[in-house]
Amino acid sequence: MATITQQALSKLAGIFAREVPFNRVLGLEFRDLDPEKCVLSFKMKDELVGNFVTGVLHGGVISAALDMAGGTMAAVSVMHSNPLTHITELGRKLARLSTIDIRVDYLQPGRGEEYFATATMLRTGSRVAVVRMELRNETDTLIAVATGTYMVA
Amino acid sequence: MATITQQALSKLAGIFAREVPFNRVLGLEFRDLDPEKCVLSFKMKDELVGNFVTGVLHGGVISAALDMAGGTMAAVSVMHSNPLTHITELGRKLARLSTIDIRVDYLQPGRGEEYFATATMLRTGSRVAVVRMELRNETDTLIAVATGTYMVA
Amino acid sequence: MATITQQALSKLAGIFAREVPFNRVLGLEFRDLDPEKCVLSFKMKDELVGNFVTGVLHGGVISAALDMAGGTMAAVSVMHSNPLTHITELGRKLARLSTIDIRVDYLQPGRGEEYFATATMLRTGSRVAVVRMELRNETDTLIAVATGTYMVA
Amino acid sequence: MATITQQALSKLAGIFAREVPFNRVLGLEFRDLDPEKCVLSFKMKDELVGNFVTGVLHGGVISAALDMAGGTMAAVSVMHSNPLTHITELGRKLARLSTIDIRVDYLQPGRGEEYFATATMLRTGSRVAVVRMELRNETDTLIAVATGTYMVA
Repeated sequence: MATITQQALSKLAGIFAREVPFNRVLGLEFRDLDPEKCVLSFKMKDELVGNFVTGVLHGGVISAALDMAGGTMAAVSVMHSNPLTHITELGRKLARLSTIDIRVDYLQPGRGEEYFATATMLRTGSRVAVVRMELRNETDTLIAVATGTYMVA
Repeated sequence: MATITQQALSKLAGIFAREVPFNRVLGLEFRDLDPEKCVLSFKMKDELVGNFVTGVLHGGVISAALDMAGGTMAAVSVMHSNPLTHITELGRKLARLSTIDIRVDYLQPGRGEEYFATATMLRTGSRVAVVRMELRNETDTLIAVATGTYMVA
Repeated sequence: MATITQQALSKLAGIFAREVPFNRVLGLEFRDLDPEKCVLSFKMKDELVGNFVTGVLHGGVISAALDMAGGTMAAVSVMHSNPLTHITELGRKLARLSTIDIRVDYLQPGRGEEYFATATMLRTGSRVAVVRMELRNETDTLIAVATGTYMVA
Repeated sequence: MATITQQALSKLAGIFAREVPFNRVLGLEFRDLDPEKCVLSFKMKDELVGNFVTGVLHGGVISAALDMAGGTMAAVSVMHSNPLTHITELGRKLARLSTIDIRVDYLQPGRGEEYFATATMLRTGSRVAVVRMELRNETDTLIAVATGTYMVA
């Protein structure tokens, strides 16, 4: 069976990181993309602070990073289930990929130097993908968890 | 009964808009704050784009704006239930206010010139507030809805 | 344009109420089914109690009734978008209809003699429907709200 | 440090299983209750069927069982953080325990002979507990996952 190459996945990551304007605002980097798991990271910086008293990460940054990790996992899933699809058609499919809904649970204040958003597949199908995500800091503290449903058809 | 003044609410809005770094990134403005409803707005700009093919708003921007509207509604609720509390103590209470969880449903692609995030209370108590939010554009298209649970104790 | 008849909708309601065993356990009745809104009702009875100290409705009964109202709304939506489909094929489509996810917010303890679960469409498409639901008692107290995502393809 | 005894936990399980009427409808049994994890089980039976064509479990049964597992986990957490509290006062605390919100993701049709609802703590505090739940059948197929937020104060 043909499988998606690591090269194609790296290309996908590069496009997402460079070409999505808001991902540049967040400073998202793609660390690991494989059929089972996607990991994104970003560093703490002043613009991402939500609470000026405590200096913790803005909840919106957390949900944005988790949604991006989930959407990327769904995209990788689309690529894997379409291994022989031409890159142009694949691009069209990926451009149509969208978040249907997401739930984020904030467990601990977002403190740390660097954050890691990890996504794993819960359910994959021809139309909908359900993905579980979590955000940890550099000391592995679990800051937030999320579940997202994505349209992948 | 003592009630919170419009002046105090405007002060709250000013602090949130100016002092929360990530809100400045999003360009959030506070349009309407009253005991029943909070309305925030922000204008489309290049940094907020999520899909470089279609140019629509990043899902993370949508959830951040909705969470901010919900959190502000919860803060206004705290102020209303503590009308005689000194501003310093009130500030302490508001600094502890946090999102427990949020669910966002993305209904339409985020297209438009300007967006309005509206929040209304679903449940208010001494410890937890549940808030409903929605995002519309300048033509009143419903783009997303959300429900958030906030710790207000 | 051909539209679904009220007779067909009543038939659907009859099948759902009689043939779904767990709906008989709950005592669900279909009160109103139209393209915009679905209303189900059920009466309080001993088996539905969740808290034996306070005698309130079990949270699982609330979520089951809300999910049923949402799923019915999605089914009515499928029927409306397939007005010329033969009843056999329609039955096949409806048998495949399923809940992808649901979020329920419990706002007030479930007290009352009779409960009304109302569903309205938030988003409808060829593959996924997003429905908003609420549960009220006979005095119109809002007990719970929910949002459900349904596979309708 | 005083800790809650296994005897007290068994007593709690017995009360929940016998005295909550709707739990008897579902046939819920408490299999494992410890500070880290709660496991409930129930057997397939005709009344629990949701789809009369395919014979699968009603979604409402799934969410009810998951909510019960989550609420029990939260109750065990309350008992553990109040090891010296008199049983009467503890009973009062537990009677006030309530679900704030729950999200359920349905991953696979509910097929099987017996089902196991497992709950683990995500966040525990003096006022709110966040619990993760999953439902598997006797062949360990993952049927649904959920996250619930509970008021424990």
